[in-house]
Amino acid sequence: MMETVATRGKQHNPVTGSGGMLLGRVAQIAPLADGKVARVHEGLSVGDRVATLVSLSLTPLRLDGITAVRAESAQLDVSGQAVLFESGSLVKLPHDMPERLALAVLDVAGAAPQVARLVKPEMTSVLVLGGGGKSGILCAAEARRKLGPSTGARRVIAVESYPRYADELRALGICDAVLGIDARDPVAMRRAVLEANDGREVDVTFSCVNVPDTEMAAVMATRDRGIVYFFAMSTSFTKAALGAEGVSKDVDLMIGNGYAEDHAAHTLAMMHEFPAIRALFETRYG
Amino acid sequence: MMETVATRGKQHNPVTGSGGMLLGRVAQIAPLADGKVARVHEGLSVGDRVATLVSLSLTPLRLDGITAVRAESAQLDVSGQAVLFESGSLVKLPHDMPERLALAVLDVAGAAPQVARLVKPEMTSVLVLGGGGKSGILCAAEARRKLGPSTGARRVIAVESYPRYADELRALGICDAVLGIDARDPVAMRRAVLEANDGREVDVTFSCVNVPDTEMAAVMATRDRGIVYFFAMSTSFTKAALGAEGVSKDVDLMIGNGYAEDHAAHTLAMMHEFPAIRALFETRYG
Repeated sequence: MMETVATRGKQHNPVTGSGGMLLGRVAQIAPLADGKVARVHEGLSVGDRVATLVSLSLTPLRLDGITAVRAESAQLDVSGQAVLFESGSLVKLPHDMPERLALAVLDVAGAAPQVARLVKPEMTSVLVLGGGGKSGILCAAEARRKLGPSTGARRVIAVESYPRYADELRALGICDAVLGIDARDPVAMRRAVLEANDGREVDVTFSCVNVPDTEMAAVMATRDRGIVYFFAMSTSFTKAALGAEGVSKDVDLMIGNGYAEDHAAHTLAMMHEFPAIRALFETRYG
Repeated sequence: MMETVATRGKQHNPVTGSGGMLLGRVAQIAPLADGKVARVHEGLSVGDRVATLVSLSLTPLRLDGITAVRAESAQLDVSGQAVLFESGSLVKLPHDMPERLALAVLDVAGAAPQVARLVKPEMTSVLVLGGGGKSGILCAAEARRKLGPSTGARRVIAVESYPRYADELRALGICDAVLGIDARDPVAMRRAVLEANDGREVDVTFSCVNVPDTEMAAVMATRDRGIVYFFAMSTSFTKAALGAEGVSKDVDLMIGNGYAEDHAAHTLAMMHEFPAIRALFETRYG
């Protein structure tokens, strides 16, 4: 890494080409040419703890040394400096939030804000695949908030095949149903989802299940003119496109954009708004 | 193929697993259990020429013989029968349309209907990558129709790097600008698009350019909260998702769904509504 950054001025994982993100403290805030402060730098002071939300593969870096290698969390402690452009994205870390929790949450910061945009008052059912994982829980919680309290009329349904995660999600009390089935079986999943939703397909599905071959299940559980939003990086473009076409399903298929305006602030705030989720995340990722 | 269909009852290309589509004549229309006719079969009579819009990999088939192999168009003449379910999709071919033209157009039937849905009256600019290809021309024509006549206030901008296709698209007179640049260079493309659009990013981009590494150009030419719709099967899910996140671009990224309700009728009708496009397609694909 010292060599990569010395040679390239950026960080590129030699295998994947990806860069990761960093936590650090603000050393200096440069004004724009017109003397104003860039929007992304507003509200920041020298010394503030921040996290960058743009890949380090795109961030100019200087590394002075590596002081610790934390293999189990794939993290390094380093001394060095980074330049964060006005076109980039960064977030001030709350004083009361441990760094590990902040990192875990920021890693999936885009999920809940997209749910907040897409779940509309007229919808009555939301499905979350991989609902017991980190992004799945945030999606389910945001969907619950948008649909209102669980009265049976408006349902948040989750699919989670890992029993411990399914139990932890049930204990949060945000879902009307948590189905312990495998999302790679589209016929079985569709049957179970319809059973949990009075025989109807859902209005919108968020796929947070990071295993291949789950595109068809997401498509088949969603109603015509509904939305299937794929957050999972394991999603195959062609499987989603040709799968929907193959069964003549007129759904909107969306590629999860990890960035949305103010996504980091939105998701960090959820740690205050949903203390039970914060407690669970601190147990899991703290 | 005789062996595949005899063994499996369906057609699967041994290399790609894909099935293709078929043209044929209606032999029989079975009523539903309640005696009604399925919606997909409405308006059809025995003897009508139809095209199926569901992959042959999903269509029960019987092959009695292959009477011609047309290598240059990747088509076969066969005798046999197919079962088209009520959940499938098929379209009656207009009497006045040659089969080759119908096949060429139906192959991209989903493109224009999606443009018609997504281009809204309040939008002022639409970009089509690969605008000179078959789906690109249909997208540009539909965008023009939605935005209204070319007065400079509401622009359809196309990118087409193949000079002959760019010239043919210009001759149709539906675009305000046809840019002969390579969509794999996001910085050059963004510059050219902004120049053609009074310095503004476009409201919505349709990518019909079937070459890899064009995702970033599409993202970077589109405004925040705009839409990038990827029709090209060469699109990489991760390049689109991580690309948008990497440059903090808050756009909706959509996977092109080849199916939309009544898409075949919509696109076949365009051959009457845009005679210049029909003439061009007959020259190219007839």
